[in-house]
Amino acid sequence: MPDRYAYLGPEGTFTEAALRTLRPDVPDTARIPCEGVAAVFDAVRSGEVAGGVVPLENSVEGGVTSTIAELINGEPLVISGEIAVPVEFALFARPGTTLADVKTVATHPHALAQCRGWLGRHLPDAETTTVSSTAAAARSVAEPGTPYDAAICAVIAGERYGLHALATGVGDRADAATRFIYLSRPGRPSEPTGTDLTSVVAFIADDHPGALIEVLTQFAVRGVNLTRLESRPTGDGLGSYCFCIDAEGHVADARVGEALMGLRRVCRDVRFLGSYPRSGRATEVDPPLRPRPATEADYAASERWLARIRSGGID
Amino acid sequence: MPDRYAYLGPEGTFTEAALRTLRPDVPDTARIPCEGVAAVFDAVRSGEVAGGVVPLENSVEGGVTSTIAELINGEPLVISGEIAVPVEFALFARPGTTLADVKTVATHPHALAQCRGWLGRHLPDAETTTVSSTAAAARSVAEPGTPYDAAICAVIAGERYGLHALATGVGDRADAATRFIYLSRPGRPSEPTGTDLTSVVAFIADDHPGALIEVLTQFAVRGVNLTRLESRPTGDGLGSYCFCIDAEGHVADARVGEALMGLRRVCRDVRFLGSYPRSGRATEVDPPLRPRPATEADYAASERWLARIRSGGID
Amino acid sequence: MPDRYAYLGPEGTFTEAALRTLRPDVPDTARIPCEGVAAVFDAVRSGEVAGGVVPLENSVEGGVTSTIAELINGEPLVISGEIAVPVEFALFARPGTTLADVKTVATHPHALAQCRGWLGRHLPDAETTTVSSTAAAARSVAEPGTPYDAAICAVIAGERYGLHALATGVGDRADAATRFIYLSRPGRPSEPTGTDLTSVVAFIADDHPGALIEVLTQFAVRGVNLTRLESRPTGDGLGSYCFCIDAEGHVADARVGEALMGLRRVCRDVRFLGSYPRSGRATEVDPPLRPRPATEADYAASERWLARIRSGGID
Amino acid sequence: MPDRYAYLGPEGTFTEAALRTLRPDVPDTARIPCEGVAAVFDAVRSGEVAGGVVPLENSVEGGVTSTIAELINGEPLVISGEIAVPVEFALFARPGTTLADVKTVATHPHALAQCRGWLGRHLPDAETTTVSSTAAAARSVAEPGTPYDAAICAVIAGERYGLHALATGVGDRADAATRFIYLSRPGRPSEPTGTDLTSVVAFIADDHPGALIEVLTQFAVRGVNLTRLESRPTGDGLGSYCFCIDAEGHVADARVGEALMGLRRVCRDVRFLGSYPRSGRATEVDPPLRPRPATEADYAASERWLARIRSGGID
Repeated sequence: MPDRYAYLGPEGTFTEAALRTLRPDVPDTARIPCEGVAAVFDAVRSGEVAGGVVPLENSVEGGVTSTIAELINGEPLVISGEIAVPVEFALFARPGTTLADVKTVATHPHALAQCRGWLGRHLPDAETTTVSSTAAAARSVAEPGTPYDAAICAVIAGERYGLHALATGVGDRADAATRFIYLSRPGRPSEPTGTDLTSVVAFIADDHPGALIEVLTQFAVRGVNLTRLESRPTGDGLGSYCFCIDAEGHVADARVGEALMGLRRVCRDVRFLGSYPRSGRATEVDPPLRPRPATEADYAASERWLARIRSGGID
Repeated sequence: MPDRYAYLGPEGTFTEAALRTLRPDVPDTARIPCEGVAAVFDAVRSGEVAGGVVPLENSVEGGVTSTIAELINGEPLVISGEIAVPVEFALFARPGTTLADVKTVATHPHALAQCRGWLGRHLPDAETTTVSSTAAAARSVAEPGTPYDAAICAVIAGERYGLHALATGVGDRADAATRFIYLSRPGRPSEPTGTDLTSVVAFIADDHPGALIEVLTQFAVRGVNLTRLESRPTGDGLGSYCFCIDAEGHVADARVGEALMGLRRVCRDVRFLGSYPRSGRATEVDPPLRPRPATEADYAASERWLARIRSGGID
Repeated sequence: MPDRYAYLGPEGTFTEAALRTLRPDVPDTARIPCEGVAAVFDAVRSGEVAGGVVPLENSVEGGVTSTIAELINGEPLVISGEIAVPVEFALFARPGTTLADVKTVATHPHALAQCRGWLGRHLPDAETTTVSSTAAAARSVAEPGTPYDAAICAVIAGERYGLHALATGVGDRADAATRFIYLSRPGRPSEPTGTDLTSVVAFIADDHPGALIEVLTQFAVRGVNLTRLESRPTGDGLGSYCFCIDAEGHVADARVGEALMGLRRVCRDVRFLGSYPRSGRATEVDPPLRPRPATEADYAASERWLARIRSGGID
Repeated sequence: MPDRYAYLGPEGTFTEAALRTLRPDVPDTARIPCEGVAAVFDAVRSGEVAGGVVPLENSVEGGVTSTIAELINGEPLVISGEIAVPVEFALFARPGTTLADVKTVATHPHALAQCRGWLGRHLPDAETTTVSSTAAAARSVAEPGTPYDAAICAVIAGERYGLHALATGVGDRADAATRFIYLSRPGRPSEPTGTDLTSVVAFIADDHPGALIEVLTQFAVRGVNLTRLESRPTGDGLGSYCFCIDAEGHVADARVGEALMGLRRVCRDVRFLGSYPRSGRATEVDPPLRPRPATEADYAASERWLARIRSGGID
């Protein structure tokens, strides 16, 4: 039996699209949809599948809470690949339905948040319901006796469930994207490719601001750039955070190795999440907007701004 | 007509409990439940209500995406109070239902995530459905013809909708808490109380790691402690973040004022979200776990750890 | 009686040349040579003279100990001007003396250190004696019954005492320069010119390395560049230092004012030494040699270097 | 022939005392006085002697310029030992001379600077002359036909040249001390003792303040404490400095090794000057005076201080 690969289902999710791109060699029958992110992790952990794909972060909504929770707290898996997929939402309905007929729309909460503007303009009176995924919304709309008139979902989901598109490009941000990761059981990292990322979770020993500066300095002092820094609660009460960090380079690189050792010495704990080839997504399209040095006028401006906010004005 | 106050509804949410605690003087009829966080913001913005309460962050799930999005992007409101409320989940059903009868459970996605352990142990075969709030789940269970047998919700919600408790304390974390904020239209901040917090959103000019160190240094160099640092996508594509920062002190304090001016000079933009009295929640229950200085043995241990993760071992 | 001005004498010193350049309006009779740096300070302090000029630092030998000691410890004076003068040494003798006749050479210890190469090549067997200044050496050579055959001194000193030059350009460094400062009694600083320097002495509260980083950060965080950082013992035992700092900008500038306030808060003590126009000396002739980011090869090279020095090799 | 050891002469210097303490096993005949610091370095370099002792820094006057110049620029030698010697000055004269007879005093310039107070009180009218060392002053006073009535020198120097003490403890600072170093040709460093120092000279690539912070951070980030930081001109013009650094620990220690590698990567050049046992001198007699966190009152005080110095007041 060939290797099988899990993904966040049902069929037709953006995650399925990500798995297809990351592993074009996998035959259709070897892609296994799972219900919920935790189920994908568990399938990989148990050895039931050789690998799995889940969303990690979205350019509009931020980190995917359940994925990060599994990476941080669950039995360790490592990231061995990543890909960023543009997120294009469409409104799908059963054949015969027109836009004017749509009174109820189902979709995933994140998708709903990203399509609020379009809905407000085109379906101001429609009732919206959130379900577990955009593909689930599409599937539900296709079911007999469904309470929903239309679904906001990916094109592949709408097509898979025999719906037809009432509108495409209904997201408020044309450039929205989601980043997916490929999970494996721990093992020797793949060889460095020259453009790798290394992911870790740092549990700082002390929540004072100096502690985070100390953590960031471990990277900066060795010239290692970070591409993601995301705070997450550790679950141990309000005000207790850990930091999910993606750094440029591979654990086999001298500078990354030294930075990780330093990180481990200053942190309460560090969980290594893998080194893997960086996705070919367009990075640094725009040159970074370096702050020009502040001038005497900037000092005066910042003083006026302070006076304004101190007296209740709008900045 | 007396002032009215909006909160994230429906009736029976933890948010209603927070509003009752923050403003015990408000009569029952002046508390207005709104559907969705955005509706609370809009009610305050329009002047329809004098203030509003929404959840900001949860100790298990992290920041509340929709609240943060409204604070960052919408027409400016300011935070003029905060409170942390313990989150205690219970399983409620219609009178006559026993635990053995429960085949379907409705709740909010975050509540579901926080009760997974209990459900796995006591209702491993129950189907779960997520709805817009735990109070909505309770309300739905109480409706005739409901598809749900039980709801995971707050005790006040279960009671409000005439349900009875099948189990209490069903959350996996006994110490879970949610922090709520009180929103007002911009105006002169209240007087410093000596134990205040100041909230801002910093849009850094450049995403290199040095830039965040630079931002944090603006606070550290003036001895201003941070109590929250949360990265959020700006919506401008993957890899573009802003930082939600809560700092100890009041904008009227010299050090906070100077730090904010410095922040504004090094950032592309800064949004001031208000100075307000800190909630009396138990902070620093545990003394911070300061990292003892690393020893030669720590250096050797970190070198062995690196060798281990480089060769695929588990850290 | 017109104002008088003190300088480190005797007549013919580089310091006299500096005073002539800084104050070309002062008539010859109003320039008062003093014996020793302390005497110049005392003349200004007592009001006997309106101002005074002393050397502050030399590009080869470093800070002038006695000047720095008076600035740090004595009754406060402020710096209200500066000038850098190229230091060109010549060998002068009485008329009739040839190079071959020179058996004994008098000069100042710093001049001796800077002419060692030339002396080794041209007068390897000459005995050298150090006296209190190069001008004093010239004066001494001119005296009847002098034990010295020649003096290493400035051209103006040799000429003033009726000597003739046996050789010019006898310094080992063609680009040697000395920086002189103009001292006044404390008073309102002159108006900012746009290219000013501000001098302070920082007594750090704690000698751990973080303390100096903290001091430097007070400037860096406000974008204030330093042009000089010189450690000096405080006199309170080995290992106790203060730092003489020259920063770009004027105390009236917002950023300099804020940096000085921050400095004062983190230091045990700060002595303000004045804001004054920067001398027109050629600064930044060469663009700063920015360190290129370290490469993997640099990491390997530094590891080999460490192995080498650990085993006793020469770096 | 047994090994011989050079020191900064003539006989009777504090340096001789340091050599006696550092190497009590060396017979009297094997201690070779040299004229000048450079001569000691050259004797070690040439192999003429097995080792040499020179002063490095004085608690009142700061670094010894000529020693530092040889360490920085000359053919490399390494430091393999150090010792701090209390500096106690006495006034010595030929037998029969009384204090009232003293019209001329000879001594070394640094000694003169450190005895100015005593001389002002007890010999206000005496003329002072500076010579190459305090021992040379004593020797000169003992010579027939000497122009000097008395010498300020160490007790051992006065006794060696047959003088008698007119006064002891004539230094203005009772706790003055000088630190001497033992020089060897490069070779494998001695084994770590647990309380070692490591000395280096760092030539930073760029003189902006951030560059020095970067250098210090290489130590701080690895928890390596510095015990000395001294700026020195590189000789390449005003404003070009290198930094002489003494750090706690041995080059064989992991943290020191890693810090040195990091230093080498960020600097234009680094010269390793050796790892050696730390002298048993009383360090940290006083606990470091940690700056208490600045209060709102400190902010107000620093603002008043700034107003004061801006308007010409004395701080």
